[in-house]
Order: sequence, then C-alpha cells, then structure tokens
Amino acid sequence: MTDLSFFPLAGIPLVKPGDDLGVLITESMQAAGLRLHDRDILVIAQKIVSKAENRYVRLRDVIPSPRGLELAGITGKDPRLVEVILWDTAEVIRAVPHVLIVAHHLGFICANAGVDHSNVGPEKDLVLRLPADPDGSAQRLRARLRELTGAAPAIIINDSHGRPWREGTAGVVIGLAGLAPLQDLRGQPDLFGTPLQITTVGFADQIAAAASLVMGQADEGLPAVLVRGLPYQPAEDVSAQHILRPPETDLFR
Amino acid sequence: MTDLSFFPLAGIPLVKPGDDLGVLITESMQAAGLRLHDRDILVIAQKIVSKAENRYVRLRDVIPSPRGLELAGITGKDPRLVEVILWDTAEVIRAVPHVLIVAHHLGFICANAGVDHSNVGPEKDLVLRLPADPDGSAQRLRARLRELTGAAPAIIINDSHGRPWREGTAGVVIGLAGLAPLQDLRGQPDLFGTPLQITTVGFADQIAAAASLVMGQADEGLPAVLVRGLPYQPAEDVSAQHILRPPETDLFR
Repeated sequence: MTDLSFFPLAGIPLVKPGDDLGVLITESMQAAGLRLHDRDILVIAQKIVSKAENRYVRLRDVIPSPRGLELAGITGKDPRLVEVILWDTAEVIRAVPHVLIVAHHLGFICANAGVDHSNVGPEKDLVLRLPADPDGSAQRLRARLRELTGAAPAIIINDSHGRPWREGTAGVVIGLAGLAPLQDLRGQPDLFGTPLQITTVGFADQIAAAASLVMGQADEGLPAVLVRGLPYQPAEDVSAQHILRPPETDLFR
Repeated sequence: MTDLSFFPLAGIPLVKPGDDLGVLITESMQAAGLRLHDRDILVIAQKIVSKAENRYVRLRDVIPSPRGLELAGITGKDPRLVEVILWDTAEVIRAVPHVLIVAHHLGFICANAGVDHSNVGPEKDLVLRLPADPDGSAQRLRARLRELTGAAPAIIINDSHGRPWREGTAGVVIGLAGLAPLQDLRGQPDLFGTPLQITTVGFADQIAAAASLVMGQADEGLPAVLVRGLPYQPAEDVSAQHILRPPETDLFR
C-alpha cells in the first residue's frame, strides 16, 4: 500500500450563498499545483455546502412554537434556535440543560440537528441548517467537478458529531457520491485462511474523521481536503443513509 | 497547515510472544529510509501488541462456567470463547444470536470484549485478548523507541469497534502515550469571534480511525502506521480512559 495523504485546500474564500463550490475547489487546487484525479477523494465540510446552498435562517424571523418554548425552557437555549432545530427534527432524543440531542429527519442522531451558530458570520442572528439533501449536494459537486476538470473524484460531505460512550466529536459522513460508504470484509479469509466473521468497516466515516483532523475546527478555516493514495471501489447510487443502522437492528443502542 | 501523511510501515514480520516491537518498528522504518521524530505519531494495531505480550489463550485449556455456557447457548458461540470473553467483561450489554457486546474491564464497550479469533495464527484453537494495560504498553513502547532512536513519538494503540447508530467499525484508541486524547476548543473564538460553545474533539480517536484506513483489516497485514504532519500537544500522564464517557453523564446512551 502506498502512503495516504491529506492535502488541505488552502485559499478557499469565505463561502457565500450561490457560490460555485466546484469552481472554488478547482481554483484552490490549481493555485496549489494539484490536478484532480478520478481516484481522489474530496472531503468537504458541511458548513460550506450549507452556506453555498443558503441554508441560513435569521433568528429574528422565527416565531417559536409551544414545543420550541418548552424545550428552550429545559435546555436554556434561544427558543428561536430551538424552533429551527425542531424544523429538522424527527425525534427528540435528549433535552437537558445546555444539551439538545435529536434524530434529524435525515436519520443522523446529533446535537441541535446540526444547526450551527458558530463560524456562520459576523451577524449573531444567523444560524445555518444542514443541506436539505447532502447526498444530492455531493452528486452535484461531483458532476460539476467532472465538467470543470474531466475528473470525477469521490465526494464526502462531513460533519462532527458527538458519540455515545466516548468523549469528543468525530467527523462522520452526512452525504457522499462516488464511493461505497461501507466495506464488507465478511467471508474474506484472514492472514491464516480463517474466514473473517463480521467485519463491515465504516470506510467513509473513517475518511471523514481523518479529514476532520486536517480541517480543524475554528481558526484554520480549511473546509476542503483532498485525499490521495487510498484505494476505493467507485460506486454509483450510494447514500449516507446506508451508513445508518435501522433502530430495530441496532444492538448497540 | 502542512499535508498530513500516513505511512504504513511495511515489512514488519508476524509478531511472536516476546518480540520487541520497538526494534521491529525501528528496523521497518530504517528499511524505508524513514527517521523517527519527536513530533511523529505512531499508531500500532492492538493485535501485534497483544501478540508480543503473549495474550493468547488456548481454548482447549478453558473450562466454561455456567454463565459462559448460558451465554454460549444464547449467542451460538463456542462456550470456551465466551468464557475467555467473560474474564475480561465488567458487564454484558447485549447477547443475541451471533452477537455478544460487553463493557470490558478497561471500560470499552465492544463486541466479544475485544477477544479475537481472526489473524491469530494457523491454530484454530488460539484466541487473543486485549493487552492487560494498553496505556502501559504504549508508554513502554514510547520509552523503548526513545532508547533506540532518541526520539519519543506519541503512541496510539488502536482497535476497530462497532458503533451505535452507524454501521461499520471504526478505529478507536485503546491505549496511548505522549499526546492528549481530546482537544478542548471550548471558549476559543470561531472565525468571526463568536465563542465556540461545546467542541471537545475526539482527536486521538480520529487518528486511530484514519490509521485503520491504512492498516486494512485482513490481507494487508500493515499493523503499524507512521503519522506525520499533524500538530499535537505533547502530554504526559494521559490515558485512553480519559476518552470514556462516565455512564452517568453520557447523554447519548
């Protein structure tokens, strides 16, 4: 196996609604002397996808519902922020002071339904929702990059989620295109020929976590990472939804 | 930020009880023309640490207890294997056909208490337990590398664990030395000067996940990965235990 490298794409400007991420990424790569290949993987932070897709909400335009007011009372959060969270919430998992963990309509279980208050902009009044269809966002970006460069890398849109049992967030996939999110090693023999029992590997999530290391969280502002040197099986018709365990078969719950 | 690179250390032979991992790693790096630096991070697969520490158990020497027989009946697993799992188990979390998830005495929640049947050796009768003290193993390896090379990189011992909510295993830390496992970004300002609310990052776990991508699972046999280009804060008196959420404050459970 060759070396695996993560190249942070520097020089991507602050993203505004309507910006063409394909162009911004291509320009950043050109400036760094990098040429895109089909076998590359690009990891893009959810935040710049949401910004380009104008998923902003102005809190002063939001009128909290009774449920939003109730959860705001429990959590101590701004009732208008809680209301925006509820727009994207299928089920409230946990509401306690300072913490609101929900199942997002897209199936992800995360704090605040991924609605973000930080790094959103100088206006304290703005919050940012997840992309409406992160898999679609990834597919469109992949098609756009093919148009611009002739190469169609795999695309992963990542976000940082808290986890049960273990402290600290980890990068996970919320949308993807061009690669299968899971590697199924079941039935393959191990080093000594014994069949492996269960090994479904969270391949794309591990890429998302690795890219989060490079992106940093706050002061760096490196929202796109080029991953090179990792063999993967190209795949169409993939979805981050395939990573979600159906609750009825989730033995870890 | 510079590029982040993962170098799989090729040429590490199959590890046997009593082997000196420091020597094996140093020789592999020398053969590759790589020189160890203090700012490097070495990720080592749990399996070779366990092998070097002779954590093997011969199933034919194991006499299952009534509890082992009962759980074997439920899971369909070999009662002697279940018994070895119980040696390392603080609490059985889930026992259903084919699946036994437990809280290990070390605090990790994982399938089979990390007791492994695959890649253990040509004898089908052998299983391999986790290191007795993975943090201690990491500390000793770090000290040994300092002795051999003058450089003391951070050490992470990783394993692959299943996860709630999401399919597929991800690499996680089970022992470490020389770096803090969590990055606490609380209180740092975001890009626009708004204080970040909660961002404790699972820094070392993300490194463990990234290294798992390189290690592969079965046919590659690349049990050690050199991580270069990732700034980290050196730290002593660290432990993988610091990553575990106390159950009483685990809002995700």
